[in-house]
Amino acid sequence: MEPNPRNSVDLNPSGIKVQGTACVSGIVYGPVRWAHHRPDLPVSGELIPEDERQTEYERLLAAVDTVARRFRERADATGGEAAEVLRANAVMAADPAWSKNAKKAISAGHPADVAAVRATAKFSGMFASLGGVMAERITDLEDLRDRIIAEIRGEPEPGLPSISEPVVLLAEDLSPADTATLEPAKVLALVTMRGGKTSHTAIIARQLGLPCIVGAGRELSRFQDGTTVLVDADQGVLHSGVDPEAARAAMSAAAEHTRRITRWEGPAHTTDGHRIKLLASVTSVASAQQAAATQAEGIGLFRTEIPFLKARREPTVVEQSQIYAEVLAAFPGRKVVFRTFDAGSDKPLAFLDMAGEDNPALGVRGLRVAEGHPSQLQNQLDAISLASAESGGQVSVMAPMLTTVTEAENFAILCRERGLSPGAMIEVPAAALMADLILPHLDFVSIGTNDLTQYVMAADRMSPELAELADPWQPAVLRLIRHTCREGQRLGTPVGVCGESAADTLLACVLAGMGVSSLSPAAGALSAVGEQLSRVSMAACQRAAEAVVQAATAQQAREVAAHLLDVPGAR
Amino acid sequence: MEPNPRNSVDLNPSGIKVQGTACVSGIVYGPVRWAHHRPDLPVSGELIPEDERQTEYERLLAAVDTVARRFRERADATGGEAAEVLRANAVMAADPAWSKNAKKAISAGHPADVAAVRATAKFSGMFASLGGVMAERITDLEDLRDRIIAEIRGEPEPGLPSISEPVVLLAEDLSPADTATLEPAKVLALVTMRGGKTSHTAIIARQLGLPCIVGAGRELSRFQDGTTVLVDADQGVLHSGVDPEAARAAMSAAAEHTRRITRWEGPAHTTDGHRIKLLASVTSVASAQQAAATQAEGIGLFRTEIPFLKARREPTVVEQSQIYAEVLAAFPGRKVVFRTFDAGSDKPLAFLDMAGEDNPALGVRGLRVAEGHPSQLQNQLDAISLASAESGGQVSVMAPMLTTVTEAENFAILCRERGLSPGAMIEVPAAALMADLILPHLDFVSIGTNDLTQYVMAADRMSPELAELADPWQPAVLRLIRHTCREGQRLGTPVGVCGESAADTLLACVLAGMGVSSLSPAAGALSAVGEQLSRVSMAACQRAAEAVVQAATAQQAREVAAHLLDVPGAR
Repeated sequence: MEPNPRNSVDLNPSGIKVQGTACVSGIVYGPVRWAHHRPDLPVSGELIPEDERQTEYERLLAAVDTVARRFRERADATGGEAAEVLRANAVMAADPAWSKNAKKAISAGHPADVAAVRATAKFSGMFASLGGVMAERITDLEDLRDRIIAEIRGEPEPGLPSISEPVVLLAEDLSPADTATLEPAKVLALVTMRGGKTSHTAIIARQLGLPCIVGAGRELSRFQDGTTVLVDADQGVLHSGVDPEAARAAMSAAAEHTRRITRWEGPAHTTDGHRIKLLASVTSVASAQQAAATQAEGIGLFRTEIPFLKARREPTVVEQSQIYAEVLAAFPGRKVVFRTFDAGSDKPLAFLDMAGEDNPALGVRGLRVAEGHPSQLQNQLDAISLASAESGGQVSVMAPMLTTVTEAENFAILCRERGLSPGAMIEVPAAALMADLILPHLDFVSIGTNDLTQYVMAADRMSPELAELADPWQPAVLRLIRHTCREGQRLGTPVGVCGESAADTLLACVLAGMGVSSLSPAAGALSAVGEQLSRVSMAACQRAAEAVVQAATAQQAREVAAHLLDVPGAR
Repeated sequence: MEPNPRNSVDLNPSGIKVQGTACVSGIVYGPVRWAHHRPDLPVSGELIPEDERQTEYERLLAAVDTVARRFRERADATGGEAAEVLRANAVMAADPAWSKNAKKAISAGHPADVAAVRATAKFSGMFASLGGVMAERITDLEDLRDRIIAEIRGEPEPGLPSISEPVVLLAEDLSPADTATLEPAKVLALVTMRGGKTSHTAIIARQLGLPCIVGAGRELSRFQDGTTVLVDADQGVLHSGVDPEAARAAMSAAAEHTRRITRWEGPAHTTDGHRIKLLASVTSVASAQQAAATQAEGIGLFRTEIPFLKARREPTVVEQSQIYAEVLAAFPGRKVVFRTFDAGSDKPLAFLDMAGEDNPALGVRGLRVAEGHPSQLQNQLDAISLASAESGGQVSVMAPMLTTVTEAENFAILCRERGLSPGAMIEVPAAALMADLILPHLDFVSIGTNDLTQYVMAADRMSPELAELADPWQPAVLRLIRHTCREGQRLGTPVGVCGESAADTLLACVLAGMGVSSLSPAAGALSAVGEQLSRVSMAACQRAAEAVVQAATAQQAREVAAHLLDVPGAR
């Protein structure tokens, strides 16, 4: 076993040092920039007396002008296509029809921020009904609205700052709206105050391969825009005041590690020749095609709901099958696993019209939606079957949120009737606990560690306060994973792992030791996992697997695994 | 083993028959009455043009008059103290200061329903700041507001109907506001369209000892006010058109069963002499005193947060200890278990000022609150310790939502430092899975089956759509309970059960067979559990316990247990 080339940075600088949770590794050095929170939208407000309404309208116009001007200035400072987009935003901000709508709301007594919300709602409704390219502008429109509201309230401009040179992006937390417009080339690293390893920021960072630290807490605000920092995302630490020479040395060691990863050639196996299948987790035809250019041996998780998130009616069998066929075409003759629509009231599919729930994570989601919409599941399976008939690959389908033996039985029948290989996500504790009775109905299962952790620990994976609990290294979670693996081995059912854990190089070794036969990280994390596996023996992985389930805490589990696998810098 | 005297009613009537989920047993016969849903509160609304505002105000006044008149009529039809309360409500409805406030909102352009919300908010704010008796009027005030809004909108009057003779109360679902004013003497049974066995309605029904069927679905609306029905809450069925003679026979068999329960004298043991401790689950000094009049051998769960739900500042050590001492005084020298404050963003303690969460059931709740408020937990333990010093009983304390080994270790230290016996609720799957490492720190544990079920099944216990999943008879839940019991027996740590399962007479036998040493149902359900245990052998309980964990479904688990324990009518 070769020693791991990564070395922890111990610079003991006189500057500021802030510790967070390391989540995508990498070491970078550069200036920080803050992305500010989006404003809370006003739901209603005190009415404005009639004699103040003109002033209120002028306040709104001034805010619109400022926001439009900033976009123009950014466009001038940028070039190419990006400048065009910024200029279009400036034009949209200054749209007289929007102002007219806003004026109407103010004349009825609404304050300027409420007027901005109403005018925007009117426009986005129109855009949505037009569909196509216009519907895609809604995100931009809402971004404008947020900037205008912040300006009205005298708050810092929300969303991503305008960036010309690459920066370390700091934020309280990043929303999907923020990350949608993020330009990876201009971001050295992401660091947030809140969030855990399974937060939205963490997932995006992993997909884009950006070094990332989350949960750095209030301390992070000690860094001001422009301060140069060394981000050690292996250790989860930011330092200011680091000697450039020392920073360069740290980065060069990291670069050497990156080179090893880049040079790594699949397929993945341990030093003693045990094969672990590395499959990619993808969300679109494009990401499937990108994954095909990596060492991925197939697709372990295609999130079928993502291409249809904004569809206003259920996509037809033919519409669906075209997309599925393109995904299959990216991996001709290889393993491809489609996960059926995984929607819920907190991740709605527009065409499903789902009611709000008090606890959406414990609600009608995943396979449970099919209970009320049986034809939708049947249509989807028909579409996958149609696509698979044209391809020669091993087409598998798995159900999200499968909970009971009866559900497994019924889902398997629907799949087999269509010549598809049935499987399930193991992400509800009940499914893991009932593995002995569930697995016999299925051809394979894939453990979804993010949700499994959330339920086993009864800790929302998105809650910043509970990040320590919502950690797949918690021994209770590892015990249920091991239990599932044992039942899989006893019954001859392959057990895979998808979710963020599959991209944690240390945990990947532990999972291999538990008997997991495939790992499905995001394509960007695949080589790092393969390279790590190439430096450990299966015997060491098995020893680590036995040890972690005896640990009392997540920290102890990490430490014992790092020790047994000789991987430094485990956190 | 004597046969169970309950017989299922099979009347095959020509009338309507609707099946729901049986949840508190009993057979009654009487007319139905509907309690209507409370209106959704308007958050804002379109503004009313100036020339229509006077009419809008008159619409509001008319609604107020109608609601006030109905209260006066009811007061006249009722007598005694109840009439006084109704008359006070009529006066409150007609309060000119309230109307003046509402008028102000309408003059600013708000519609009548928004005006009612605003005027009420103003009043309840004042009442709250006055505290004491005035603060207690807020519930009445909000009830008035809901009736006025429903009247404005032409919807049926919400909340409980005015009842003079005992009725079978039908509802879509009952809210805490509804049940707060429910008069048990005038209700024969509760039947709801929605909700599961752990819904609010079910819990209240169990506390009041009212026969109850939940989840009867849309079919229930086929029964109109005044229709006479036979409610067989043993089987979960409502029949209309039942021959009065047949109804009488069914009720008489049920009455015989009730007599057996009433005659039952503790302590509880199986036919072969195995003792099971029956403790009461209580929420107040009064309910502790009521429990003392039953066969309860002590208190297995005192929900300490309930007496302080509305406290606007943290109660002092002395204030708390006075209440705890009164609870201890109800069971001198007996076992009493205090559960520390169990609050969360969906069951807030006013003085904690908790932020909203996306998934409150997976949020900062129970023991996790102490992380941010350590002195609050210490004060509470000081108060319990102070109360216990004055009593001679075995005073135990348990932590809600305990999740990790570290939490168990720390909680035990805090308790032992104060001479208190430490325990924990086992309601997070992780705590059950880590029982081998958690139990050694504690003197006892108590399984909270409601929450454990919710997390194991990833199914909100309050979600009507998921009632079938959120069932403690689900084999996955039973397996985790058995695992905890086994670890308890191996380590010599007593394992109890509280929650609704402890009141399910069939499940109580299964739990006894798993090795549970104490059950803590609501005091009202205690004798039924004891009587059932007196008719089974421990050997049969153990056979049932082994069988249920092999079942594939909740239904199969119930059936096999009923068969092995010779209890008819398992559903």
